[in-house]
Amino acid sequence: MIHRKSNGVFIIAATPFTDSGALDLDSADRMVDFYLEMGVSGMTILGIMGEAPKLTSDESLTFARHILQRVAGRVPVVVGVSGPGLDNMVRLTGEVMGAGASGVMVAPMPSLNTDMKQKGYFAQVCNALGPDVPICLQDYPQTTGVNFSVETLLDIFAAHAQIVMLKHEDWPGLTKLSRIREATGQRAGRLSILTGNSALFLPQEMQRGADGAMTGFAYPEMMVQVVARHLAGDVDGAEDLFDAYLPMVRYEQQLGLGLAIRKEVLHRRGVLSSPKVRAPGPALSDLDKAELTRLTTRLEAKLAAFS
Amino acid sequence: MIHRKSNGVFIIAATPFTDSGALDLDSADRMVDFYLEMGVSGMTILGIMGEAPKLTSDESLTFARHILQRVAGRVPVVVGVSGPGLDNMVRLTGEVMGAGASGVMVAPMPSLNTDMKQKGYFAQVCNALGPDVPICLQDYPQTTGVNFSVETLLDIFAAHAQIVMLKHEDWPGLTKLSRIREATGQRAGRLSILTGNSALFLPQEMQRGADGAMTGFAYPEMMVQVVARHLAGDVDGAEDLFDAYLPMVRYEQQLGLGLAIRKEVLHRRGVLSSPKVRAPGPALSDLDKAELTRLTTRLEAKLAAFS
Amino acid sequence: MIHRKSNGVFIIAATPFTDSGALDLDSADRMVDFYLEMGVSGMTILGIMGEAPKLTSDESLTFARHILQRVAGRVPVVVGVSGPGLDNMVRLTGEVMGAGASGVMVAPMPSLNTDMKQKGYFAQVCNALGPDVPICLQDYPQTTGVNFSVETLLDIFAAHAQIVMLKHEDWPGLTKLSRIREATGQRAGRLSILTGNSALFLPQEMQRGADGAMTGFAYPEMMVQVVARHLAGDVDGAEDLFDAYLPMVRYEQQLGLGLAIRKEVLHRRGVLSSPKVRAPGPALSDLDKAELTRLTTRLEAKLAAFS
Amino acid sequence: MIHRKSNGVFIIAATPFTDSGALDLDSADRMVDFYLEMGVSGMTILGIMGEAPKLTSDESLTFARHILQRVAGRVPVVVGVSGPGLDNMVRLTGEVMGAGASGVMVAPMPSLNTDMKQKGYFAQVCNALGPDVPICLQDYPQTTGVNFSVETLLDIFAAHAQIVMLKHEDWPGLTKLSRIREATGQRAGRLSILTGNSALFLPQEMQRGADGAMTGFAYPEMMVQVVARHLAGDVDGAEDLFDAYLPMVRYEQQLGLGLAIRKEVLHRRGVLSSPKVRAPGPALSDLDKAELTRLTTRLEAKLAAFS
Repeated sequence: MIHRKSNGVFIIAATPFTDSGALDLDSADRMVDFYLEMGVSGMTILGIMGEAPKLTSDESLTFARHILQRVAGRVPVVVGVSGPGLDNMVRLTGEVMGAGASGVMVAPMPSLNTDMKQKGYFAQVCNALGPDVPICLQDYPQTTGVNFSVETLLDIFAAHAQIVMLKHEDWPGLTKLSRIREATGQRAGRLSILTGNSALFLPQEMQRGADGAMTGFAYPEMMVQVVARHLAGDVDGAEDLFDAYLPMVRYEQQLGLGLAIRKEVLHRRGVLSSPKVRAPGPALSDLDKAELTRLTTRLEAKLAAFS
Repeated sequence: MIHRKSNGVFIIAATPFTDSGALDLDSADRMVDFYLEMGVSGMTILGIMGEAPKLTSDESLTFARHILQRVAGRVPVVVGVSGPGLDNMVRLTGEVMGAGASGVMVAPMPSLNTDMKQKGYFAQVCNALGPDVPICLQDYPQTTGVNFSVETLLDIFAAHAQIVMLKHEDWPGLTKLSRIREATGQRAGRLSILTGNSALFLPQEMQRGADGAMTGFAYPEMMVQVVARHLAGDVDGAEDLFDAYLPMVRYEQQLGLGLAIRKEVLHRRGVLSSPKVRAPGPALSDLDKAELTRLTTRLEAKLAAFS
Repeated sequence: MIHRKSNGVFIIAATPFTDSGALDLDSADRMVDFYLEMGVSGMTILGIMGEAPKLTSDESLTFARHILQRVAGRVPVVVGVSGPGLDNMVRLTGEVMGAGASGVMVAPMPSLNTDMKQKGYFAQVCNALGPDVPICLQDYPQTTGVNFSVETLLDIFAAHAQIVMLKHEDWPGLTKLSRIREATGQRAGRLSILTGNSALFLPQEMQRGADGAMTGFAYPEMMVQVVARHLAGDVDGAEDLFDAYLPMVRYEQQLGLGLAIRKEVLHRRGVLSSPKVRAPGPALSDLDKAELTRLTTRLEAKLAAFS
Repeated sequence: MIHRKSNGVFIIAATPFTDSGALDLDSADRMVDFYLEMGVSGMTILGIMGEAPKLTSDESLTFARHILQRVAGRVPVVVGVSGPGLDNMVRLTGEVMGAGASGVMVAPMPSLNTDMKQKGYFAQVCNALGPDVPICLQDYPQTTGVNFSVETLLDIFAAHAQIVMLKHEDWPGLTKLSRIREATGQRAGRLSILTGNSALFLPQEMQRGADGAMTGFAYPEMMVQVVARHLAGDVDGAEDLFDAYLPMVRYEQQLGLGLAIRKEVLHRRGVLSSPKVRAPGPALSDLDKAELTRLTTRLEAKLAAFS
């Protein structure tokens, strides 16, 4: 189970498709192996990057079960269960927890535009899922349109012990992270804070007390090493390594388009058979692909000089 | 099949639940019978008012098949198939058309924020569904966040002959309706225009050339008679009748809350066993219910004086 | 000064222009006289309906001074001072309070997307304006994009005694109104609640405890009588009168377009020399004007039968 | 005058205030001298970063005149004149063009949510300003909420010869930039394209055909050299230099907070007497300031190694 001291890199996993758009479970296996080999501490599936809303109910379940089986308990797996109705959320949660998931991730519905609606919603969710399901709350206003104040988040954490993790991706959000880090442990119990936003501010966020990252950058080895160096006290070394990758991080962190870039990189790295994104979705032009090649080449040169 | 001259009232049907939140197919039967008795010309299911996003894929299909069977071809049934992925849309469309639906309704995805994205999306949708499926395009910016210009809509209609109907609920939208009415028949072929927005402007919209209404007002008999009087040339009589109901129309047309009001009225009228709305969703307070009773009583008194 | 028991109709005044777009102070005089003759209890100028953002700083001040002089203390005048910067707000407030205004109206800036930002902003505003300036807080999410919870509003009221009035126009907002009515007087001191949204729910809102209306419906006499009947205990009579006007209320309550309709009605009623709205702004087509004539004629017939 | 071949770095200038919030014209002089010394090709004032909406009409004019006098024609100066009313736009444009400005910048109003409204608005603007005023159109959806398609922009450019420059800051926007670069010169006449978004993609944008940058990064010397190397054909050298600054570029490109960071950097560099931002506005915490110091120190070390 995920818990209040979970740390490291929980990689946000893509959902692999064949060129024709069918679930590609062979690539899913390779992807699991790749992520584990890179040293991730956990995995998150069926998130926004996982194209969850484009799967049928059956496909979601098939994919989740397949991943859970391949991971086989080696690292915790968090499953995204967000959606417009609680009935579906309860059903999917029951199924994946039964199949070995270590927790679920819940993002707020777009209509939660006041503090009281936000508190009410997470009370409903926690009540519906039951107290034994550990929850990671996703704070991602750029995509959900829902803005939480620090105080509202702390109230929610204090009210619901089962929320043990925060996926932090408000932006600009550095002060928010510092304030939540400081306050939890006092008011609401220590909480695991993993950062998102494609890791664009990973060194700053680690310096401000994050426990790691939960995002899908296609070079997980960078994130793993940055977090590890940090935990080992090598703050400058962590940031040096990060900065070498920053041009690529910045390139992947293009809202919407980022998914296509990641799948292309994972395809080039031999992980995914196809970079296919389900329609309607973004696609890379030839120019984009050449630009990506240029950035990759520059990254490799920089890494060579680095080591 | 719905077609370019479809007219009358296509009632937006609720999805009935029991108090515990399960699909209530007995109430669904009563609801179909009620709507038909009130004289509707068609029915639309699994729309936004039908709580479609809160159903599982299986429930959607079960409900659609049940309604189609009960209607048994007496009036055309349109099925809402909007969603974030084309694969799911194609699958659901195939199933309901195979079960006897007369067309599907498609609302734009929230991300379609330019004219070109809008055109591109409907090209993708039409291509994916195939040319034999008649489509009703839903123009409802208050809920989707997508704003179409008249010109963009006309381009879309001209490009895709299978789009035969417009659910018009932009607001303020009277001028838009007039312009589309005028332009179709010339540039893009005549199109059936049914108005939504809880019928708040039904007389004005009929006067501007609408072919009827597609909305879920809980007194469908009013809409049926207003449209009928209109088509019979009794413009003033139509508006007189409408105005008698206007306090109630205005009351139901409360975005979000309206669904709970409608289900409560249909429950009071003996159609639905329960006014249950699936969580998370709006609920009426005791004060709301008393207010509704007051409005109902006033409506009945007015209708008594009317006849 | 406005205060916690202010009631009746505070009419939202238009800003009259000549056909060429210049400030029309003659029409402004006629408008003041007209509103007073209709029996309003107060006046609000330079609100959103007053096209305030399209005036220069000088024009705003000229117009406010002219109105204040013409009103000459017969009823309280509230001046809208909302804007993106506190310096400008302080300056304008000082000038109009010095010229005889009875209070200012402040709407939240669009960026206030959390409870804490909302509280922080009104603390800044109250501090900047000083404790002697009575404030009417405008809660109008459809236009500002800012959503307040009841609890946040009550916290703000409790913290700042100078906020003595709420312009209530959240929608759907009937439950919000009931809850604020109930809570103020206990937690935060009684507050004057005047409703907006073109008065579309005026009878319901009076029944739930509103003190009157603050909106710009072009037939202020209706609102004055509805509020008066209510305060006299004639709840049904108030609602009967309102319902007669409802088709017109509904027509004017078209977001954005409503301003053009109101100016046209005030022009037809002999109040404004010109229905001019400054560019860029809405304009009525010939069809709209004919529709308005039809609605006006129907209203007059109904009123004749009514009396 | 700005023209279709304008290139280089048009720095977006801050509006300096004293600690008490008054216009600080001494700092303004130093800022002009600093920017010129750094080699900028132009200057843009009263933009969003310039806190224009927080100035009075008089302050805007005073500041603009002061800057224009100090620049004294050495580089072109563009003045932001966006706002909710055309009358104010015409007035301000007349005044600054008369005082020596080289063009104005116009961003769309937030309500322009369809292609036709966008075209209509720029037709109104061009007509109101007259054909002799060169215009830079600002495409910045993250702040304005207005999304232009490539096709709509090209239609606008083709219709109005006086729009000679595009401030490109849609995001993700690389493909948009490529398509506009390709199409102008054919369909709509060559257009100067300067990129914004804090220069986060400056090398990629130069490689795709941008003519330079129009943004306010507090190290203008980087942008000047990147653009110069590019124009000299040293594509890799340009990107190497950029990448050294990227951690800082990324840090400044925090929407909203970025302004406070920039003013702090300009203050530390001896340009501004005070980092004051007018209320309500962002402020840096002690932790933010220490973080900024760390980033600055790292930047200096990297630059030392670089040369």
